[in-house]
Formats: sequence, structure tokens, C-alpha cells
Amino acid sequence: MAVNLVPPRNEDLHPVAGVELGFAEAGIRKANRRDLMLMRFAPGTRIAGVFTQNSFAAAPVQTCRRHLEAREAFRGLVVNAGNANCGTGEAGLRASRITCEAAARLLGCAPEEILPFSTGVILEPLPVDRIERALPDCVASLGADRWADAASAIMTTDTVPKGVSAQADVGGRTVTVTGIAKGVGMLQPNMATMLAFVATDAAVSRPMLDRLVREVADASFNRVTVDGDTSTNDSFVLVATGHAGGSEIVSADSPAYAALRGALVQVAAPLAQAIARDGEGATKFITVSVEGGRDEAEALRVARSIANSPLVKTAFFASDPNLGRLLMAIGNAGVDDLDTAGVDLWLGDVRVIDRGGRAASYREEDGARVMKPAEITVRVALGRGSVSTTVWTCDYSYDYVKINAEYRT
Amino acid sequence: MAVNLVPPRNEDLHPVAGVELGFAEAGIRKANRRDLMLMRFAPGTRIAGVFTQNSFAAAPVQTCRRHLEAREAFRGLVVNAGNANCGTGEAGLRASRITCEAAARLLGCAPEEILPFSTGVILEPLPVDRIERALPDCVASLGADRWADAASAIMTTDTVPKGVSAQADVGGRTVTVTGIAKGVGMLQPNMATMLAFVATDAAVSRPMLDRLVREVADASFNRVTVDGDTSTNDSFVLVATGHAGGSEIVSADSPAYAALRGALVQVAAPLAQAIARDGEGATKFITVSVEGGRDEAEALRVARSIANSPLVKTAFFASDPNLGRLLMAIGNAGVDDLDTAGVDLWLGDVRVIDRGGRAASYREEDGARVMKPAEITVRVALGRGSVSTTVWTCDYSYDYVKINAEYRT
Repeated sequence: MAVNLVPPRNEDLHPVAGVELGFAEAGIRKANRRDLMLMRFAPGTRIAGVFTQNSFAAAPVQTCRRHLEAREAFRGLVVNAGNANCGTGEAGLRASRITCEAAARLLGCAPEEILPFSTGVILEPLPVDRIERALPDCVASLGADRWADAASAIMTTDTVPKGVSAQADVGGRTVTVTGIAKGVGMLQPNMATMLAFVATDAAVSRPMLDRLVREVADASFNRVTVDGDTSTNDSFVLVATGHAGGSEIVSADSPAYAALRGALVQVAAPLAQAIARDGEGATKFITVSVEGGRDEAEALRVARSIANSPLVKTAFFASDPNLGRLLMAIGNAGVDDLDTAGVDLWLGDVRVIDRGGRAASYREEDGARVMKPAEITVRVALGRGSVSTTVWTCDYSYDYVKINAEYRT
Repeated sequence: MAVNLVPPRNEDLHPVAGVELGFAEAGIRKANRRDLMLMRFAPGTRIAGVFTQNSFAAAPVQTCRRHLEAREAFRGLVVNAGNANCGTGEAGLRASRITCEAAARLLGCAPEEILPFSTGVILEPLPVDRIERALPDCVASLGADRWADAASAIMTTDTVPKGVSAQADVGGRTVTVTGIAKGVGMLQPNMATMLAFVATDAAVSRPMLDRLVREVADASFNRVTVDGDTSTNDSFVLVATGHAGGSEIVSADSPAYAALRGALVQVAAPLAQAIARDGEGATKFITVSVEGGRDEAEALRVARSIANSPLVKTAFFASDPNLGRLLMAIGNAGVDDLDTAGVDLWLGDVRVIDRGGRAASYREEDGARVMKPAEITVRVALGRGSVSTTVWTCDYSYDYVKINAEYRT
């Protein structure tokens, strides 16, 4: 049950000039469902990516990193759901290579111009022959207006496909940005989310694209957490076809860079939020804002300590204003020399903690009132500096346990 | 439902010469249950303690730290359940002081010779008048053979009281060690567990006692985790009455120190394990051993990353050998330059990961077999060095969510 999340239709998502999408039923883990997705890019399309920091980076993540280093431009990417191709050793790397070779044959390019992605169960061999067999169906179904279909083909335990689209004036031209993402568990991206693909027709140099993908990840996917577990397959790639025309963005100081960055965040932030809204078993969408930090790192530590605390998450599920748990989570964040007497906390519009203690004005019924809605905001003021940050998460419900206890059955 | 945990009877726990225990129904949070406990110590009794590293240390923790610095010997300690007296500001510190003053009047000593402890809900005012009213009942019920009764009087969401006792030859004399503990949630002690009291009649100098309390905490309470949340009230104190006689232990190099340390760990380790066995909603008791680390810190990070992963914990609940989640958790521990090809993993006697990938010998039915019992061992070999460590934890069940969603109702 996702929190206030509407599935996009194909017509809700702007096509991006130079990008086509296709899908197929490969039967990788389950029969009769779309589980393979292909994106085809026009020649000259540039891509930048950020990937998981988990030491056991999956085979496709390793392959992506290699291809991104080796090439400037790319012709396609292939995503399979149902199997993460992780912890699979040499055979896993071979399966990623076979995937790229098969797609390259169909698209008429070099295997290094293809990026492979996998998501699903870890430590099981990838049945790459099924991918090879189904790729022609992907090619046959390619279309520029199939972003929503593509979003549904990369889902695992997601209950709602996730896609967002925006247009902006960049350097005097209308530029389109459209993105899709998947992921609802094993999710505290540490560079990027499980899988997210955002494409634009803007013309951007590769160094600027590398910079944009990091900046946009930090403002979106790196700010969401479901369970604090960083997946082995997290990947966020930014695709720029250049088909909108105009002069290429080559400087981060240009107004065009700022305009494009804004449009990208406009797509990536709601995509990241969609992941928390569809978090496994989620009944509440929770925004944790921390202000008054000395630096970004400590503000983020506090926000994540709150957002990942199982005790805080179960209290949100119960709509129980057991607010001491919020205080515990702040104190537990490992902030050096935190003067607790400087800490304030609001839940929605209700002041809960005033200078480190229960606010005199706080009444239990006010806490209960703001805990009830499906969307809740926690705001913490640390009183140490001027840096603020925000993290999005969801609650822990019975269904979180159910989904994860029964995932493979 | 605790995992293989038998409640101790008073006769199972050796009295410690110089220590008496009493209890009362103070009605701090709920009526008609024991929720106040008093320990009285013979003159000259020394105490050392370790306390939570949470920035929001509760008022009684602050008071304990002050008293332990100010005094050499102590006459009593008071524990209330039902209210943590945390986030309660000046009023909370005053409540701790009033508790100590009331106990001191009854025991005929200075307030600084009393140590106060609280456990329960955070951010609510402590009704200290109820403690004052009930303390005389504690004194009236004092007895040397009431360790099990005392263990039950400090419980909150615990389902089983926790007490362990041992005797050992220390410097040619029989020394007794008896301890009790409580705590089943908000539990990843970072110095000590929520509340644990271990007493011995050994004669130990204060510097040696300070050293022992740290060493014993590191070998016991600091190795247990239920949910990764460090409580604001964690306290572990070591009481030494000296009534066993003999020469005082004044050197950590003496055989007597080693013998006493051994006896203390013999009590503290099963107490710590009892906390995981009675972890909120626990159906499985899980031992995570990590070997081959470069240092203790990285071995502990890997062990805790496994033990705290909600995905690993729900897989244990389901008896589902979804072993990729173990691999994810290892990779997620933030070990610098981890060569994943050097990592091996066993579940019970079944080799699961061989040099970073799925072991060729691994069969799903073997994994299912070792996941079934109520006690499971995970063994990880990092292949980087010679340091090993162990962490004890439990699984996440529906009841974990239920207990924490309904805690205050």
C-alpha cells in the first residue's frame, strides 16, 4: 500500500528526443510478467552514473563502471528484474557481458556502448539465456512514449511504477527531463537508489554530466531511506541525448547549468520520494528535516538516525506520539559534543521538545493529532550552525515484516 | 516469547555477602506490579559503572556519573521501571536527587552514597512522590536471597526476568558473582545495556573495578543488539562488597584479577545473551561471529551490520535462507578496501559463501535446514587479519512491530 502515490500513464511522461523504450517477459524469476527493459539511445548520447558503495557491488554495477570509464557515448541500457546478479563471481560478470553483447548485436553497436542493470534476489545465478531470448521482443516494442511501461518492467516488490517528467527553459530552449525509478526495500542509497534512470534531451558535456549526476543524487536519491540497508545494486544514471539542440553546457557556473540542474531535481526528488511512499509495507510518508547543523554530515546523521530507527518507525505506524523515541534517535546519531539543551523539535506544527526537554506547551492530544495523517513532518533544530538537510522515509508496519519474511516464497 | 530462556528462582541465584534486595509496587506507570527496587550495600562497598553514549543521557545517568566521581564507597541503589526520567530537564535531575535523598534517609547515609536508575517511557515527568512513598516497602522487604524478585521488579517489556550467578576461586577464596539485567528493546548498548547490576563479594580496588566494568561490558553487554537503537538510560554497574575477604585486587596482571574477570564474564555474558533471547518479539536467538578482521572495530562493524539489518532479521524470522541479504549486510559495513573475494560465510555447519560468491557445494535445502532451529550461528571470515568478535541478537517478527506499535497503550 503506497502512500499517496499515483501510477503514471505513458501519456503523463514526456518523451525525451533520442530515447526509446521497450520491454519483454523474459521469465527471469516469475512467468507472465514484464521483467526486462531496454532503452535505446540516439548516437552521441552521453551518460553519467553513480553506484552503490556496498563492497559487494553486483556484477552489472562493475560492468557499468567499466563501460562508463571506457566510453564517451552510449547506445542502450538493459535492465532485468527478479535477479540481482550479485555474489555470482566470474559467472556473473560473464552474464553481464553476454547481456551487453546480445543487446549490441540487436542495436548495431559495440558491447561497451551498452550498460547493464539487474535487480532482485542476491546470490543466485542469472539465467542470462532468458535475457538473450527476450531481447528481440524488447527491440520490437521500442517506442518513445513508453516510459510508464518501462517503469513497470523494472519493478520487484514495488506496488506502484514510478515516473516523473518536467520541462524547463535551459539556455533559451525547452528541455525535457523524464525519469523512472524502482526500489522499495534494502534501501538507503549511498550514492544513488536501487535503480533510477533520468533522461534529458539537453546538450551537456560529459564532465558537467558527471557533476550533475552527483549533485542531483545528493538532492534526491541519497536523501531517501526505507530500512537503512544499502543495496548491492544501487544505480542512478543520467542520460543526455543533446537532441534539444542549442549550445552544450560546459560550465557549472552558467545559468543553463542551474536551470537544467533545477529541472533534473524537479524530476529526481519526487522519484526519490515515490520510493519512500512505496516503501515496503508503508502506511505513512515521513519527511525528516534537520536544521542548525555545523555541517551537512552531522545534519544527515541525525536525520538518518531518526529515519532508520525501528522504534521511531513503529511509533509512526501506530500513530503513537511516543516522542521520547525521537529524542533517543537524535542522541544516538553520534554528533560530537551535542549540547542537548540547544535541541528543539517539532512534529508538524506542534512543538514537542524545547531546549532539550519536553515543551511546556506540549499536550498529548496535539501529538496524537499530528501523528494521524498519512504524511508527517519531523523538524529538528540542533542549534549548532546553519546547515540543514532533509531525508524522506516511511513507517514500519506488520506488512514490512510480512513482505520481507515471504519475499522469496 | 523468549528463546530458550528460563526465569531464575531466588534459590538459583547465590546471595552476595554484603548485598540485600527489596522491592515495592510504586504504581509509577501501572498499578499492581513491582516497579521499584532497592539494593542495600554493606559499608565500604565499591561500585564502578559504564553508561549510555546517547547524547540525551537520562537524569539518573547524569546523577550516577556525578556520584561515582564524588565517592569511593556506596550504600545503595534505587531502580524504577515505567518511566525513564529522560528529556525531563531540571525537574528530572531534581527527581533523581529526591530519590537519592529519600533512600539515604531510610538507609542512614548521604544522598551521594545512593545511585539512581530509571527505565521506561522517555519525555514524561517522573512521579517521584510515588517513589518516596514506596521506598519504605522496599526497605521492609530487604533480603539477601531476593535476586530473582529484584530482577522481576526492574522489567518493562521484558517477558522473563534475567539473573545469573557463579562462584570461582579468586586468590584462594571462593568468590560469588550474581547479576541481574533488564532490557529487550531500544537496545544496542554502547558501553552497557539498559540496566544491569552485577555484584561480587570480592575485594577489589576502585581503579581495578573501573577497569573490570569496561572489560566485562565489552565482553558481554556491548556485544548484544536487538534493534540497533542505543537507549538513553543504558547502565551497567559492578558492585564489590569485599566481604569474601582476602587481599584486595590491585593489579590487572594478578592471577586473582584474571580469575575474577572470568567469573564476572561468566555471569555477564549469559545475562547479555538473555537480553537478546528476550528481544522484543524474538523467535530466534542468533550468534554472529566475525573472524579474520584487521582490528576489533571492523570486525564489530561487520557483525553489527548483519545483526541490525532488518532484512536479515526478517529472513531469520521466516527461516528463509535468503542469504544474499547476509552478503549485502557485510558489504554494507563500511570496511575499507574490503576484498570481497576473500570473504567466506557459514550458516551453522553449512558453507554459504566461498571466496565472495555462492559456494559450489551450497544447496538450498541445507540452508533451509540450518535456518529452522531457534538458535542459529552465522560465521563470517573476512580474510584480512586475525581479530575476531561475536555479537548476539534476535530476529524481527510481527510481534516486534506489535510490541512497539502498542507499547504505550
